[in-house]
Amino acid sequence: MTASVSPGLREAVWQANQALVEAGLVRLSFGNASGIDRDAGIVLIKPSGVPYDELRPEHLVAVGLEDGQVREGEARPSSDTPTHLALYRTYPTIGGIVHTHSEAATVWAQACLPIPPLGTTHADHFRGPIPVTRPLAEAEVGADYEAATGAVIVATLDELGLDPGDMPAVLVASHGPFAWGGDPLEAVANAIALETVAAMAIRTYALNPAVQPMAGYLLERHFRRKHGADAYYGQRRR
Amino acid sequence: MTASVSPGLREAVWQANQALVEAGLVRLSFGNASGIDRDAGIVLIKPSGVPYDELRPEHLVAVGLEDGQVREGEARPSSDTPTHLALYRTYPTIGGIVHTHSEAATVWAQACLPIPPLGTTHADHFRGPIPVTRPLAEAEVGADYEAATGAVIVATLDELGLDPGDMPAVLVASHGPFAWGGDPLEAVANAIALETVAAMAIRTYALNPAVQPMAGYLLERHFRRKHGADAYYGQRRR
Amino acid sequence: MTASVSPGLREAVWQANQALVEAGLVRLSFGNASGIDRDAGIVLIKPSGVPYDELRPEHLVAVGLEDGQVREGEARPSSDTPTHLALYRTYPTIGGIVHTHSEAATVWAQACLPIPPLGTTHADHFRGPIPVTRPLAEAEVGADYEAATGAVIVATLDELGLDPGDMPAVLVASHGPFAWGGDPLEAVANAIALETVAAMAIRTYALNPAVQPMAGYLLERHFRRKHGADAYYGQRRR
Amino acid sequence: MTASVSPGLREAVWQANQALVEAGLVRLSFGNASGIDRDAGIVLIKPSGVPYDELRPEHLVAVGLEDGQVREGEARPSSDTPTHLALYRTYPTIGGIVHTHSEAATVWAQACLPIPPLGTTHADHFRGPIPVTRPLAEAEVGADYEAATGAVIVATLDELGLDPGDMPAVLVASHGPFAWGGDPLEAVANAIALETVAAMAIRTYALNPAVQPMAGYLLERHFRRKHGADAYYGQRRR
Repeated sequence: MTASVSPGLREAVWQANQALVEAGLVRLSFGNASGIDRDAGIVLIKPSGVPYDELRPEHLVAVGLEDGQVREGEARPSSDTPTHLALYRTYPTIGGIVHTHSEAATVWAQACLPIPPLGTTHADHFRGPIPVTRPLAEAEVGADYEAATGAVIVATLDELGLDPGDMPAVLVASHGPFAWGGDPLEAVANAIALETVAAMAIRTYALNPAVQPMAGYLLERHFRRKHGADAYYGQRRR
Repeated sequence: MTASVSPGLREAVWQANQALVEAGLVRLSFGNASGIDRDAGIVLIKPSGVPYDELRPEHLVAVGLEDGQVREGEARPSSDTPTHLALYRTYPTIGGIVHTHSEAATVWAQACLPIPPLGTTHADHFRGPIPVTRPLAEAEVGADYEAATGAVIVATLDELGLDPGDMPAVLVASHGPFAWGGDPLEAVANAIALETVAAMAIRTYALNPAVQPMAGYLLERHFRRKHGADAYYGQRRR
Repeated sequence: MTASVSPGLREAVWQANQALVEAGLVRLSFGNASGIDRDAGIVLIKPSGVPYDELRPEHLVAVGLEDGQVREGEARPSSDTPTHLALYRTYPTIGGIVHTHSEAATVWAQACLPIPPLGTTHADHFRGPIPVTRPLAEAEVGADYEAATGAVIVATLDELGLDPGDMPAVLVASHGPFAWGGDPLEAVANAIALETVAAMAIRTYALNPAVQPMAGYLLERHFRRKHGADAYYGQRRR
Repeated sequence: MTASVSPGLREAVWQANQALVEAGLVRLSFGNASGIDRDAGIVLIKPSGVPYDELRPEHLVAVGLEDGQVREGEARPSSDTPTHLALYRTYPTIGGIVHTHSEAATVWAQACLPIPPLGTTHADHFRGPIPVTRPLAEAEVGADYEAATGAVIVATLDELGLDPGDMPAVLVASHGPFAWGGDPLEAVANAIALETVAAMAIRTYALNPAVQPMAGYLLERHFRRKHGADAYYGQRRR
């Protein structure tokens, strides 16, 4: 069975990886972006440790959604591939995933704190506090570490009763953010929004340590302006 | 009645939107710039949710100043259009308005604090503390939210007895800044100055929490160097 | 008497103004750079309020060192010209001066605090704490304000017994930095070094509020590595 | 004996110096990169005080590993050459060294604090806290200062029992970082990683002063993912 990767998916995943660089979310070979062809059951992802300026569309690696085996490509897939697969398997609405060590979001992950909603920039993209996972236990890190990272992201959303469309990012404690969306470029946009609100929130607390989260009705209004049946932001393309 | 938009206004509004990107004040599709033709009673504004790198002058949308109805253009106008209209209707001296989520100014808006004048960079552009609005009530957010945002900006200036020429920006609580000027590019310049003084002020308080606002006579001298009948800064173009 | 400006000085002052932009030290029309022809008794300076991207060498304005009258050029000279003249008149070794509102240096000026020497980056350029002036009195601001700014810089160096070659920058309280050097580009280099050490010092105090200034012998060693008869840094061009 | 420098080494050291600029780790003429030809016993290094934009491959200076005498090149070698030589002599596995005054790493050096491991970005590159040296004594600074800087870096690693491959950077107190690697570009990559984790750590402590270092088993897992016999990150090139 050799399902072939569509040129459109290959182009989209390559563009998403480049967009991470252009947005300043990655340095060196940190981070990765992937996309999925649900019909073919194939995930296309950045190869491991390849610098972004050397990355070409044909370097991307296709792996099976269920078995994680390489279907196309001569390189090793990203070492974080099992994390991506766990998310794609659990959430059928996700079409693209990005992982970065973007500075401000990683600061919240290292501080092991969720990012409270402090303004409409946050509310436009995230329907509530952006959660942080619990720390992984030694047994989880010692065994199938990257799969355990995916599992703890899923467990975090589950425990909070969050839909991945309402909360398109999670911070992995002592590590950094994963973000997703309907396609690879939407995942990048959510990672950019995450970095922006993370940076704003750090500085807001520094300026006013007593600041309270924004009003729930304002958060809901802004999220609903952009998402769901009553959205009136944008050009009716959603 | 089909008033047509002058090419000069279209070019100015398009340039102002591009200048927001070049100045680093906007990311993704955050923010918007508009301009007005007072004779024709028409406001020209960015379409909603369109990325800046795809924006062309012909994409800008013309709406009636009084009724808010689309006069020219095939796209939806910015969802913040009612806020712009409220300001244009109240202040006849305003020729351009920009809205951004620029990082440091938004931090003050999220902290729900006005920006005190701490130095001449501030005084060159803003004649006193840059105000922050009260939070909007649930009823205001639930009904005509964007018009209510315009109304609370006007109410904020009114209560402080401020002229929009002396104070060309207001922070909307839990949201971000609106700035204006005699034309769209002057509005952008004020938004740049706002972001600059907002960033400086955050760091000044971090370095010296006991810092006091600058002397009133120094503030007045610098503002008057650049504005009004006795201005002696620049090339006599004002 | 019409002394003409040498092409070399015009080019150097123009390059210095452009270098301020490239180094990120200025935005909008903030700031200015000047140079002097001591033989001709002429100072060449940026015109007032002209954006840097419109500035051409022929726009620079020549004024007399002693009388401050325009000798060449059709524009108004920078409103800060009397400050530059005061420094050139007092210090015969100065060949170029720059004024900026660069962010971190302005933060120290707004905080009304001198910048203590915390590391060798500082010591390579500044032989001790970088001083801040006292606030100007109302009478000084109300009369010949820009000349008073020059006078308070000179008074600050005088009171501390500092030579302008050992301390090539002063922070003007509630305003921002002035920096100088043997020629206009050296003045820019000192302004860049100032902004760098100012930014580092803000963050060093945030990280470790109890930090002490560096050892005097280390400061002296580094300053002497680059300046004076025993300098051994660089290519023997000084 | 006139050993000639291989074109490959010259190109690599030149690229490393340029990469410092592109990565934003150096300004003005701060910093330097070097590489070594172990067979020829020659170290190739940036000339002293030359701005990076004027630096050409043929300007690099070759000095003898053991005697420090210039073998090729018409310029003075970097004044920090004795520091580089001390490291090359002590650690035979090092193929490239860079010195910068990159902002965040220098902040830790100025604060005289080691950088604790707070997340996987750190653990991917540094196997534990990144150490800071003790302050140099007056006698050390007064005599062969740059050689003493090299000696205190070596002493710091020795006292902590650290291998230079496990800990490819040290902060010199009141000065800034030195970083190294198997070749000059790997040294640059480690300097970039250092600056990144230094910046993240400053902000993490600001956000959560009570934060604890990451779990040792997570640190070890990430370091081992990229280094040593069991590494599975990257494309099997190590």
